[in-house]
Amino acid sequence: MRTELTKLLNITYPIIQAPMAGGISTPELVAAVSNHGGLGMIGAGYLSAEQMKQQVQEVRKQTTQPVGVNLFVPEEVEVTGKELETADHFLQGVREELGIEKQSAPTIPSEEDRWQAFEEQVDVIIRERLPVCSFTFGLPPNDVITEMKKKNIILIGTATTVEEALAVQEAGLDMVVVQGSEAGGHRGNFINDHEGSLIGLMSLIPQTVDHVDIPVIAAGGIMDGRGLSAAFALGAQGVQMGTAFLTCTESGASSAHKQAVMETSEEKTVLTRAFSGKWARGIQNSFIANSRNIESQLPGFPVQNILTKHMRKIAGEELNTDYMSLWSGQSPRLAEPSTAAELINRVMEEAKDTVQRLSNS
Amino acid sequence: MRTELTKLLNITYPIIQAPMAGGISTPELVAAVSNHGGLGMIGAGYLSAEQMKQQVQEVRKQTTQPVGVNLFVPEEVEVTGKELETADHFLQGVREELGIEKQSAPTIPSEEDRWQAFEEQVDVIIRERLPVCSFTFGLPPNDVITEMKKKNIILIGTATTVEEALAVQEAGLDMVVVQGSEAGGHRGNFINDHEGSLIGLMSLIPQTVDHVDIPVIAAGGIMDGRGLSAAFALGAQGVQMGTAFLTCTESGASSAHKQAVMETSEEKTVLTRAFSGKWARGIQNSFIANSRNIESQLPGFPVQNILTKHMRKIAGEELNTDYMSLWSGQSPRLAEPSTAAELINRVMEEAKDTVQRLSNS
Repeated sequence: MRTELTKLLNITYPIIQAPMAGGISTPELVAAVSNHGGLGMIGAGYLSAEQMKQQVQEVRKQTTQPVGVNLFVPEEVEVTGKELETADHFLQGVREELGIEKQSAPTIPSEEDRWQAFEEQVDVIIRERLPVCSFTFGLPPNDVITEMKKKNIILIGTATTVEEALAVQEAGLDMVVVQGSEAGGHRGNFINDHEGSLIGLMSLIPQTVDHVDIPVIAAGGIMDGRGLSAAFALGAQGVQMGTAFLTCTESGASSAHKQAVMETSEEKTVLTRAFSGKWARGIQNSFIANSRNIESQLPGFPVQNILTKHMRKIAGEELNTDYMSLWSGQSPRLAEPSTAAELINRVMEEAKDTVQRLSNS
Repeated sequence: MRTELTKLLNITYPIIQAPMAGGISTPELVAAVSNHGGLGMIGAGYLSAEQMKQQVQEVRKQTTQPVGVNLFVPEEVEVTGKELETADHFLQGVREELGIEKQSAPTIPSEEDRWQAFEEQVDVIIRERLPVCSFTFGLPPNDVITEMKKKNIILIGTATTVEEALAVQEAGLDMVVVQGSEAGGHRGNFINDHEGSLIGLMSLIPQTVDHVDIPVIAAGGIMDGRGLSAAFALGAQGVQMGTAFLTCTESGASSAHKQAVMETSEEKTVLTRAFSGKWARGIQNSFIANSRNIESQLPGFPVQNILTKHMRKIAGEELNTDYMSLWSGQSPRLAEPSTAAELINRVMEEAKDTVQRLSNS
């Protein structure tokens, strides 16, 4: 399935591994995906420029194929004392439950600091001559776009509605990932509100391709060749898969996270903002359930994320899934333990079979 | 696209017109769909047995092809005085806004009465020898299933999760409609809760077909041949389209409703329970917006539906879209004004083109 997208990205198969920040997209996973004809993506959202550079160099030792990086575009966040109090009260209960001592108040970087870190990440991408960079949580500033385009870096935006996809195109980016409501992890809406931006891919893909000229990449719930063929039928030129790669051997997700995905079912993945202050889809657990009454009153991203960091670290070390962020899309029943190469082969084989089946019907 | 489903239903194309209760699925629409190779469905949820019988006879004057009927399975509803008070207070504000006088308290039929009415509907379906009957909001009792199956009526259940689809199969029904989160109108969840049952079709179809043996019909956001092909790629054997038929010439939706669908966009369709007490997807308007703070405290279905009936009638007469229930799925940008025949032809042509495009890629 050669498309304008595979040509532009210089890859064999129209499969992009979703950049899963927080250690899931290991250099091993990224390199394996790129070595087997897809596009491996480093999830650099939480990395400093220096950490990102190290990851790029780790990946480069393992592949000569194109790889990309994903950056979070810094957002304005206004946090009230009341929100911090609500978070502290809620997290104090959790700490007592887990026997964690209260840490000294974590440093919240200023917006200026966050923009500074972002610019440093961009500089590394340019200096390391990475061929692809995608953005989530908003659009990069015009001067960043101009500078990166001058270096022939393919730029990919993330949208959850047609309006957002149009904004990505108008900003001059080369492609757009449309994130359906099925997707696991953080929601990428940046113009439309949370409620209005939960659009299923069956609706989101065709309405987007009717309105934009740049290639559309579908993300959300796609785990096999049936999903890839369906996304193509709807007009996408590529797919971005997250949960499917999360359970792969090379992924850095903890064994507890992988196992939770393999054992859960679609109706148990829910949307929560209690972990990070930004809505995200993950497997229902005690932490999410207990936050229900107050989750709308918690601080925004990235503040809440910083406040829960220590708890998530301890829970992860103890393999306590009740307090881990178990991100998952809505198709966990399709998850399989395999290598990235096996997954890519399986998806492409199934896609071929699916098209054959459709042709015969 | 001949499938086990088209053979069982004895139709030419795998397209089922969604039974839209409340006057949208007119006898003209139902007959037009069946005359052009799809399956027309009478939405009998709000009809008495006698009214349903008249509609069946109207349809029969216009087609000799198979048609079906949809019934709402009565649900237990417990309503508190507090809920009725909340509804009354909220609706009093609306009445003042619209200059409507308060009516005498509407009669709320008892559960026994509602079961009685349901059994009478079933009797008419059997006596009129209708070939197909679908159910929403739950499973019919075993004796009804046994009786209808004895008469060779094809029975279709409605599910929003794999668990619900399995329950439909285990009850002995012949097919299952899987309703994705994209779907307009009322949600059909009956085992899983509202939040857990909002699954996008990209996830819902493949996970369901992997677990049930009966044919799966996909519903939600499917409006054209791309959607039909995608649903088939994911494993569905047929599609049920609502919003696509709602804007057809033969549909009984008001011109104001049709126009609202044609002019809206995907992010403006939201879920609300303020109209009926049951969650449903429609176009955001003042009534929905103003109910946000109290909608979770309103009475359940069908009580809230009865309480808002007079308001909806007046708003409809005045073409006041701020207070009408403007049901719509998440693909309103794909809506077109056309006849049902034109729609069916367009969908099938596009589906053929789509499969051709996939084969060439």
